[in-house]
Amino acid sequence: METSRLTVYGDRRSGNCYKVQLVLALLAKEHEWVDIDILAGDTKTPDFLQKNPNGKIPLLALPAGQFLWESNAIINFLAAGTPLLPTDAFALAKVQQWQFFEQYSHEPFIAVARFINKYLGLPESRRAEYEAKQVGGYKALEVMEQQLSRTPFLVGGQCTTADIALYGYTPVAHEGGFELTSFPAIQRWISRVASLPGFVPMD
Amino acid sequence: METSRLTVYGDRRSGNCYKVQLVLALLAKEHEWVDIDILAGDTKTPDFLQKNPNGKIPLLALPAGQFLWESNAIINFLAAGTPLLPTDAFALAKVQQWQFFEQYSHEPFIAVARFINKYLGLPESRRAEYEAKQVGGYKALEVMEQQLSRTPFLVGGQCTTADIALYGYTPVAHEGGFELTSFPAIQRWISRVASLPGFVPMD
Repeated sequence: METSRLTVYGDRRSGNCYKVQLVLALLAKEHEWVDIDILAGDTKTPDFLQKNPNGKIPLLALPAGQFLWESNAIINFLAAGTPLLPTDAFALAKVQQWQFFEQYSHEPFIAVARFINKYLGLPESRRAEYEAKQVGGYKALEVMEQQLSRTPFLVGGQCTTADIALYGYTPVAHEGGFELTSFPAIQRWISRVASLPGFVPMD
Repeated sequence: METSRLTVYGDRRSGNCYKVQLVLALLAKEHEWVDIDILAGDTKTPDFLQKNPNGKIPLLALPAGQFLWESNAIINFLAAGTPLLPTDAFALAKVQQWQFFEQYSHEPFIAVARFINKYLGLPESRRAEYEAKQVGGYKALEVMEQQLSRTPFLVGGQCTTADIALYGYTPVAHEGGFELTSFPAIQRWISRVASLPGFVPMD
């Protein structure tokens, strides 16, 4: 059924792309995966910019030729109508609250510190930026720890796309210099997500 | 009906808070507004941190005592079941796409440049940061311009919470050093939003 196939453009080493891979795995949804290399400029070609004018991955292509960008919008779209996305209005709002928190208060610190350290090799020219990222990253982890001390998943008792969003970079936070040893609730949550049927780890 | 009242904690000069104010005005929804002064430390008190551990505004309090944070999660919650939030799955995903774009690719450049310029008086110590923000801000405006050249609102023919999200800081972008003269579609869109019944401008 080629024509009903979803296509994901992504890089499996990116936590934002891994979110999409993880949701597709948990939902056992068939799809094609097109590897994109940001560092090689694949997201800046005219062809790619026609698909996403913002030049970022992940990108989802629907069988009818429509495109959807932004990792959290994609995973919510894929999860609609499944247990990963609540239907109760307030629970759904809380899912989005955690996802906006992820993109504004977590990813710009933890994912960017990881990128500077792991992919750029922590060059001297970016050491000050890397160190500044530690403050915001630890603050985000504190906020998660508080919630996960009270509930098994971020929005209550069930895994939602809020957890998938935060799972993109939290388990690899050490690659950005963040120690999780003083965050026991986060550590238990990481094991809980990794035990879900269909779970796949990041490449 | 005091007990059915929504309470918003916010600062009317903040675009993120203005989004909530604008949705409440467009929907003619009764509410209480509690003024919060970030610069005076109001978001860092123990009482406020109990409501939002991330220490940010806007914050919505529901009559039953629940709290919701993150501006775009709040406006989607308020707009659910109204014409401001589509029910079609793909249109709803596109609303979220633009909102995540706003928080990651627009606000950190345009709102932060505005804050440095308007509220801090562009101190010499932050001039390099301010100038670096110009590149990302103009890139975000280009992405908006492309879409708004094709459709009257960001997700088609009707105003949605995607437009409200981007309306938070786009009309005041000049306060962050961004000229809108070369973005005619954005300018027309600004007039279009400002003509909606119930519209209120930012203070």
